[in-house]
Amino acid sequence: MPTPAAKQPPPRIQIQDVRPQIDCGRYPVKVTEGDPVDVSATIFKDGHDVLRAVVRYRAAGSRRWLEAPLEPLGNDRWSGRFEPAGLGRWQFTIEAWVDRYATLLDELDRKLAAGQTEIASELSEAEALFGPGELEMWRESAPAQGAKDRHGKSSLDRPLEADVERLRARFGSWYELFPRSWGGFKGVRRVLPQLAELGFDVLYLPPIHPIGETNRKGRNNALKAAKGDPGSPWAIGGAEGGHDAIDPQLGTLKDFDDLVAAARKAGIEIALDFAIQTSPDHPWLTEHPEWFNRRPDGTLKYAENPPKRYQDIYNVNFGSEDWPGLWEALKGVVLHWCSHGVRSFRVDNPHTKSVPFWEWLIAEVRAEYPDAIFFAEAFTRPAMMTTLAKIGFSQSYTYFTWKNSKPELQEFLLQLLDWSPYYRPNFFANTPDILHEYLQHGGRPAFELRLVLATTLSPSYGIYSGYEHCENVPVAAGSEEYLDSEKYEVKQRKLDGPLLPLVRKLNEIRRAEPALQRFDNLRLLATHGEHVLAYYKAPDVAVAANLDPAAPREDVVVIPSDLGLPEEFPVRDLLTGQSYRWRHGRNYVGLAPGGAHLMKIGAS
Amino acid sequence: MPTPAAKQPPPRIQIQDVRPQIDCGRYPVKVTEGDPVDVSATIFKDGHDVLRAVVRYRAAGSRRWLEAPLEPLGNDRWSGRFEPAGLGRWQFTIEAWVDRYATLLDELDRKLAAGQTEIASELSEAEALFGPGELEMWRESAPAQGAKDRHGKSSLDRPLEADVERLRARFGSWYELFPRSWGGFKGVRRVLPQLAELGFDVLYLPPIHPIGETNRKGRNNALKAAKGDPGSPWAIGGAEGGHDAIDPQLGTLKDFDDLVAAARKAGIEIALDFAIQTSPDHPWLTEHPEWFNRRPDGTLKYAENPPKRYQDIYNVNFGSEDWPGLWEALKGVVLHWCSHGVRSFRVDNPHTKSVPFWEWLIAEVRAEYPDAIFFAEAFTRPAMMTTLAKIGFSQSYTYFTWKNSKPELQEFLLQLLDWSPYYRPNFFANTPDILHEYLQHGGRPAFELRLVLATTLSPSYGIYSGYEHCENVPVAAGSEEYLDSEKYEVKQRKLDGPLLPLVRKLNEIRRAEPALQRFDNLRLLATHGEHVLAYYKAPDVAVAANLDPAAPREDVVVIPSDLGLPEEFPVRDLLTGQSYRWRHGRNYVGLAPGGAHLMKIGAS
Repeated sequence: MPTPAAKQPPPRIQIQDVRPQIDCGRYPVKVTEGDPVDVSATIFKDGHDVLRAVVRYRAAGSRRWLEAPLEPLGNDRWSGRFEPAGLGRWQFTIEAWVDRYATLLDELDRKLAAGQTEIASELSEAEALFGPGELEMWRESAPAQGAKDRHGKSSLDRPLEADVERLRARFGSWYELFPRSWGGFKGVRRVLPQLAELGFDVLYLPPIHPIGETNRKGRNNALKAAKGDPGSPWAIGGAEGGHDAIDPQLGTLKDFDDLVAAARKAGIEIALDFAIQTSPDHPWLTEHPEWFNRRPDGTLKYAENPPKRYQDIYNVNFGSEDWPGLWEALKGVVLHWCSHGVRSFRVDNPHTKSVPFWEWLIAEVRAEYPDAIFFAEAFTRPAMMTTLAKIGFSQSYTYFTWKNSKPELQEFLLQLLDWSPYYRPNFFANTPDILHEYLQHGGRPAFELRLVLATTLSPSYGIYSGYEHCENVPVAAGSEEYLDSEKYEVKQRKLDGPLLPLVRKLNEIRRAEPALQRFDNLRLLATHGEHVLAYYKAPDVAVAANLDPAAPREDVVVIPSDLGLPEEFPVRDLLTGQSYRWRHGRNYVGLAPGGAHLMKIGAS
Repeated sequence: MPTPAAKQPPPRIQIQDVRPQIDCGRYPVKVTEGDPVDVSATIFKDGHDVLRAVVRYRAAGSRRWLEAPLEPLGNDRWSGRFEPAGLGRWQFTIEAWVDRYATLLDELDRKLAAGQTEIASELSEAEALFGPGELEMWRESAPAQGAKDRHGKSSLDRPLEADVERLRARFGSWYELFPRSWGGFKGVRRVLPQLAELGFDVLYLPPIHPIGETNRKGRNNALKAAKGDPGSPWAIGGAEGGHDAIDPQLGTLKDFDDLVAAARKAGIEIALDFAIQTSPDHPWLTEHPEWFNRRPDGTLKYAENPPKRYQDIYNVNFGSEDWPGLWEALKGVVLHWCSHGVRSFRVDNPHTKSVPFWEWLIAEVRAEYPDAIFFAEAFTRPAMMTTLAKIGFSQSYTYFTWKNSKPELQEFLLQLLDWSPYYRPNFFANTPDILHEYLQHGGRPAFELRLVLATTLSPSYGIYSGYEHCENVPVAAGSEEYLDSEKYEVKQRKLDGPLLPLVRKLNEIRRAEPALQRFDNLRLLATHGEHVLAYYKAPDVAVAANLDPAAPREDVVVIPSDLGLPEEFPVRDLLTGQSYRWRHGRNYVGLAPGGAHLMKIGAS
C-alpha cells in the first residue's frame, strides 16, 4: 500500500478486471497467429476528469512497446484490440491517464452551456495549459496534446502475457499410424501423397525408438512375448539406444529425415510421440540409475497403478536428487527431434509427470522453436486437464470418445466452451487404446456419425489407422482395447478403407469453411428428441446429426433469433449438395441412421 | 518459473482457485466477527499419491500460524473453515503435502485386493518408511505420521487476507438527525433513552463543526444567507476552527463527550460525518494554502460539477505537492474523534477523493482502532462503488432509494448479492438529500412499505429524522430535495411521528431474527403480478410486500422446493401475529396498499 513516505502520490486511476486473463495472469492467454487479441478493462478515477487509455504490447524478447487505443464502452468499461505479428510470448498491459486538455474543455463547455458568462479565470487556466491562443485553436490541438501528455498515468503492476502459436495449434486434421505396419519410414513415405490428397495436415507416429527386450509384451498384451513379437513402441529403449535413437525395423535416421522432408513437401507435418518412460533395457537405467525409483531392497519399481501393472515400463523419478540432470536430458530429447525437423509432439500421459517440469520444458523448447506444438494426452480429472493446457500445452485430447449420447455430448461441449480461452481440443475419434462400445456395436453408421461430429465440432481432430475400415472388434467384451492390437504386433496396412471418400470430403470442407476452424464459435441448438444433436458454428455453418446408428430419426432444429441470422435463409448440405430453406424457430430434419446435415448457411 | 538452477525441484502439488478471494487476493475478504471463513481450493498432484491439506491462518500482527483441516470433496476440490477470534486483518493460506504413509498403504491394499502375493519388496519399502513393525501397527500410526511429515509440501505464493470487523459493520439500525434541531448535544442526550427504546443502534450526526460565514447558503439553498441563517453543516470551518472543532451552537467538546458517553450507556453509538471539504473560512485555507486548487490567476476553485456550483465549499487537492501533509492531517482528524470515543464514520462523497488515500487512511485508523467502522456515501457508477467497498469501507449506501418497482428492485438486489462477498449494504430509506418521488406521492403506505423493505432486506438500514412523520414535500416538482430543508435551517424536532410504533416493532424483530442480520442469505421468490415483491431470508423468514401504495393487491408467492423447507409448513406474520399454512408452490397473499407479510417460517 502507498504511504506518505513515497515520493509521488499513488496513481488515482484504477485499472481493474482486465480481460483476457487466465487465473489472475498466472498463465498466458492462448492466441493463434493472425487472430487479434480483444482487450477490455474497467478504468476509472475519482471525480470528473476525462480519461484516455491504451493497450501497450510487445513481442517476445522485444523491448519496444507498441500501442493501440482503448475506447470507453460506458459504465467505466473500455475495450480495444491488438494484433500480435509473430509467434511466442507477447506481453500486454493497460495504460490510462487524465486528458487534462479534454477535461478543461469539457468543463468549460458545460459552463458555457449552462449560460455562465464570467469565464475569465477559466480562460487563464486554459492558457496556462494550452499556451497562448484562443478557444477554437485549443479545441484543435487538444486531441494530440491529450494523447501525449500522460498526466496521472496508471498501469498494471505487471504485464499480462499472450502466447501466440501457429494455426496448426488450433486447426488441423491428424492421421495416426504405426510405421511398422506400413513398411517402415520408406513405406510411409509412399503413402504421403495419398494422405495429402485426403486432406490430412499432420501424420502422427507412435514412438519410433528401439523397443526393449526384457519383459517385452506379446500379442494382445501377453505377459510373455513370443519369438518375433515386436513389443510395444511405448517400451522405449534397447541395445540400439533410447529416446534419441531409431528403431532399426523402421529404418535409419536418414530414412526418418527423408520422411520428414517428403512430408513437408507434401504439405504434411510429422508429429512424434514423447513418452517419458523406459523399457528395462533403456541406456538411462545404467547411465543414470539415480533417475529411477528403487525400493530399499534395490528393486526397480516398474510402472503400476494397482491392480494395473506395466512390467515392460519404468517411470523416471521426478523427485530424483539429480532432477536438474533429468530435466535437461528430457529437454535434450525434444530438441534433438526439433533439430531433425519435427515441430509437433504428442505427449504421452503428461498428467503422471511433474506439472512444473512441463511448464519449464515447453517454455524452453519454444524459446528456441516458437513453432513447436505440444499435444497433451491426458485423460483424467478436469483440474489436471485444464492445468496442462494453461501451463503451455498447445492442444489436448478430450473426453470426446466417451461422450456419445445427446446429454453427455451437450454437457461435455459446454464444459469445453468454458475452457476455450486456454484449452484447444483435438477430437480423436479413436486411438490405439480406445475403441468405444458405440463403435463396437454401431457399425458403419456409427463410424460415419462420429467422424462428422469430430470434424465439425472440433477444429483439430484425428483418426487412428483402421478407423476408415470401421475396425470394431475388441479384445474382449467390455474392453476398449482392440483385438490383435497393433500396439503389440505388426499389421499389413493400406489406405483403402470404405470411409476414405467421406474423410476426404470432410477435410476439404474444413479447409474451405473458416467456421469449422475454431471452437469458441460453437453454440448448441435445441432439438426436441433425444437422438438428434444440433449445433451452430458462427457465422455460417449448422449441423444436425442423428446419434442413433440403428434407426432413421426425425426432429426439429430450433434456430433462435439471437444468432443474428435473417428471419428466413437458404441452407445447403455440404455433404449431399441438397438445398433447403430454414428460418427462426423450428426446422424439420429427417436423418438416416448416423446421418447428418452439414448446412452452409446462406448458400443455395 | 522454476529452473534446474534452483536447489529443490519445484513443488508438484498444484493449489488453485482458492476461495474466498477478492480480485485475485488484491483485496481482503470481508468477515464479521463470530462468522467462520469457509475456505475451498482445487488441490492435486500428478500421479496417484494420497494428499493432505490444511488452511493455515493467523491474527493481525501475530507470527503464529494456526491450522484447520481441509477435506476432499471429490474432483480435486477441498474445503474446510477457520474461525478468526478477533478483529483486524487476518491472513490465511493453504498448505498441501503428500501423505507417504497413506499412499503406501493404499497401494499395498490395492495390490492385496487384486490378489498379488509377492509383496516382500513392498513390505521392505514400508519398513523403511514406518520403521520396524507390522502392517497393522503401521495402519494405526499412519494418520499421525502423515499429518506431521509434510513431504513435497506446497503452499500459496502469498497469503490471502480476511478483514474481520465487528457485528455493527454488517448489522445495525441507524437514525440520522441534525443536533441543532434538537437543542444541540444536550437536547440530543435527552432523546437517547427514547431512541434506545425504539431499537436504534447508531445515531448519525451530520458535521458538528463550525460553519463558514463566507458565501454561506440561505434557506432552501439560497445563494445568499439571510441574517441568522445557520448555513449548511457541510460548509466546514470558521473562525472557531475546522474539522477538529465543535460548532458552538451545538455545545462544547465536553457536551459532545458527555453525549458519546451517555449514548454508549444507552447502547447506542454516535456516528460522525467525515466530509473532506472546507468552507472559505476554514483555518486550513490560510495555514495550508498549498492543499487547495488555485487557478493561474490565483483564484481558489470552489467545488463545482458544471452546471452545479457549490460556492460555499472548497475541495482539497489530492494532487497537492504536500500530499503527505494533507493525508496526515486528514488522518489526524479521524484519530481525534476516535480519541473522543467515536468509532463510526459516515464518509461524505468518498468517490470524489483519491481511492489510494482511502485505502491508506482506513488501514491506518483500523491499525489503532480495529473496531472503527467506515460507511461510504457514494452514489455513482458500480466500479467506484465496489472498489470503495473492496479497499476497506465497512459498509456502503446503495441505490435503494431509487429502486421502487418490482423489476428495478429485483435487478438491484441480484446485483447486491453478486457484490456481497465485499460489499455490505446499508439501506437508508431517505436522506437529507433524497426524498424520492415514490415517497412524495405515496402517502403513509409508501413510507410503511419502504420501511419494511429497508429493515427486512438489508441488515443495516437507516432513516433520516422526519421519515417517521411521513414528511414528503419537495422544494419543487421534480426535485428530490426537501422543502425548507434542514440542511439550511434549524427545525424544532421531536420523536413523536406516527410511524414510530412500526419502527419499534421492526427493530425488535430484526434483533430477534438472525435471518434479518445478514444479506447473503437473500433469495428472491417468484410472484405473478407486478406489484408484489417476495423474498426469502434463510433459514426462516419470508416477506411478501405490496409495492403499490395506492391499492390493495392479491398475488401468489411461489416457494420453490430447493429451499429445503418442508412440503407444507406454518408461517406467522410477525407484524400482525396472524398464522397461515404455506407450502411448496403457490401461496395466496392479499395485501393492503403498501402492506406486507413478514413471515416467520415454522412458527404457528
